[in-house]
Amino acid sequence: MNTSVSFIAPVQEELRAVEALMRSQADGCHPDLAAALNLLINAGGKRIRPALTILAGKMFGAQTEKLISLAAAIEMLHTATLVHDDLIDGSLLRRGMPTLNSKWSPGATVLTGDFMFSRAAKMAADTDSVPVMKLFSNTLTTIVNGEIAQLLGSRCKADRAAYDKRIYAKTASLFETSACSAALVSEVDPEKTEAMRRFGYEIGMAFQIVDDILDYTGEQATIGKPVGSDLRQGIVTLPALIYAENHPGDPLAAALTEGKCLDDSQITSLVNAIREGGAIHKSHEIATAYVEQGLANLRKIPPAPERYALEDLAAYIVERNF
Amino acid sequence: MNTSVSFIAPVQEELRAVEALMRSQADGCHPDLAAALNLLINAGGKRIRPALTILAGKMFGAQTEKLISLAAAIEMLHTATLVHDDLIDGSLLRRGMPTLNSKWSPGATVLTGDFMFSRAAKMAADTDSVPVMKLFSNTLTTIVNGEIAQLLGSRCKADRAAYDKRIYAKTASLFETSACSAALVSEVDPEKTEAMRRFGYEIGMAFQIVDDILDYTGEQATIGKPVGSDLRQGIVTLPALIYAENHPGDPLAAALTEGKCLDDSQITSLVNAIREGGAIHKSHEIATAYVEQGLANLRKIPPAPERYALEDLAAYIVERNF
Repeated sequence: MNTSVSFIAPVQEELRAVEALMRSQADGCHPDLAAALNLLINAGGKRIRPALTILAGKMFGAQTEKLISLAAAIEMLHTATLVHDDLIDGSLLRRGMPTLNSKWSPGATVLTGDFMFSRAAKMAADTDSVPVMKLFSNTLTTIVNGEIAQLLGSRCKADRAAYDKRIYAKTASLFETSACSAALVSEVDPEKTEAMRRFGYEIGMAFQIVDDILDYTGEQATIGKPVGSDLRQGIVTLPALIYAENHPGDPLAAALTEGKCLDDSQITSLVNAIREGGAIHKSHEIATAYVEQGLANLRKIPPAPERYALEDLAAYIVERNF
Repeated sequence: MNTSVSFIAPVQEELRAVEALMRSQADGCHPDLAAALNLLINAGGKRIRPALTILAGKMFGAQTEKLISLAAAIEMLHTATLVHDDLIDGSLLRRGMPTLNSKWSPGATVLTGDFMFSRAAKMAADTDSVPVMKLFSNTLTTIVNGEIAQLLGSRCKADRAAYDKRIYAKTASLFETSACSAALVSEVDPEKTEAMRRFGYEIGMAFQIVDDILDYTGEQATIGKPVGSDLRQGIVTLPALIYAENHPGDPLAAALTEGKCLDDSQITSLVNAIREGGAIHKSHEIATAYVEQGLANLRKIPPAPERYALEDLAAYIVERNF
């Protein structure tokens, strides 16, 4: 059985409702907007964030309607940030599908993202929870500030603290919000809310570390981009940082921490060295440790079918593509 | 005495607090973001929307802190939409000052707008009012959908219904929200909230009509763009629509309702004809009628110093630059 099925199956009905609610957000709006939204929803991934929200909310007995709104708000916010990201990066493909900016004008792409932000805010407000809305808007601030820091910051340079900050902004913050907001709409006690917040944060950190590992280990055909594409774009991720720590005498690795950009052939040899050394294994150990911390927090919640499904979800995060 | 002073003076202290709160939104964020936000706030206009919110809220006895948050959220939302608008239009100047996109990369400009949306949502959430947050997010949807309709719609073509819809989306919706949300945070009875909503809507419609008139009557030096620039960009506004209604035999005017684009010299002669005919006067009468309807709604609220200041604000809208 596919690991993913074990945590998606119990929320399949709710995930269908989430997609339907997302699609309905363009009702009464410009028809091209509805078409763009449909394309984006069809090109969506595994819906891991809404699955996380729904499982956590069901575990706490949240009202289904509010939970669907919340999960749709989270996925809409996530998709909106990807739309603007792809435009900024000039990416033509995402998950093997053409991006919106590859088909639309920059202006229409900016506005579609803005429209999705507005609908995400509306669906978050439909939970009738002020704490959820504050968390939600602060998460968008964190994500956007992280993107600005990456866009304006120095390329080809990083350290572990900067890396942790970047992947928190990019990924873990929304996982944290997905789990924590499900507790907030359920109005459970603060200890459970905090346990869920930490669970979301920890599996979110693991999720991004695994993505960064896959950039080195994945085959081009599977991940849809050349191996080592992060480093080629000047983005120094955990495998490269660990390699540099373990090889202080390697001038190519030293260049990474000094902010010196490398040429193509230097990057290719560095990518090969990172793939072959122990940095991938060590990175995976760090991701696994995050998931274990996450599970320890999750297990503060009494056993329930949804808790077991969340454990599967956490396990899936470090197991995918390995 | 300058008309504007009569309604700004009673809220000067609050408007300073609004600006300070807006500036503080970049605290702890990337320093370039703080710099961009400062530039945008310094280049701001008369703060007519926050003045409207604060006067209405003070009239109803709203809590000052919530009112400042709300007014800052509204001005931040307004500024964010302008940042993305200027990027999409490629505008290099606004109110005679360089636009953000004239100095920054498109990516940084998109993200600065996104950041401002997130902070607007946060400040709206700080009112602790779920109805305010729903209204707020729906208003952003209306504004963005209007921009998409304009971007993707046919140029050089309009009718009165399409015009009314466009100026509602572009301008009146946020005026409506500025007035209505002040009543909502004050938790006054539904009749007063509705009276304020209509007041905001009506003066907002008048505001945009007057802007559209100024595009024909203003001097280039004052409005910072060539006379008739809307028509030159294919945007048919009220003066042109009225001119076309009054001159059914004029082939240039007929082209407007048929969606035929005109060449430069045809546009110049049409702009001159519109400036010289009765269309400007008639447009101004329509704006004045909106303000009078607005005042009739406002006067459903018992007399108070703030109500008189709001009457001055409404009068200013049709009097500016005439």
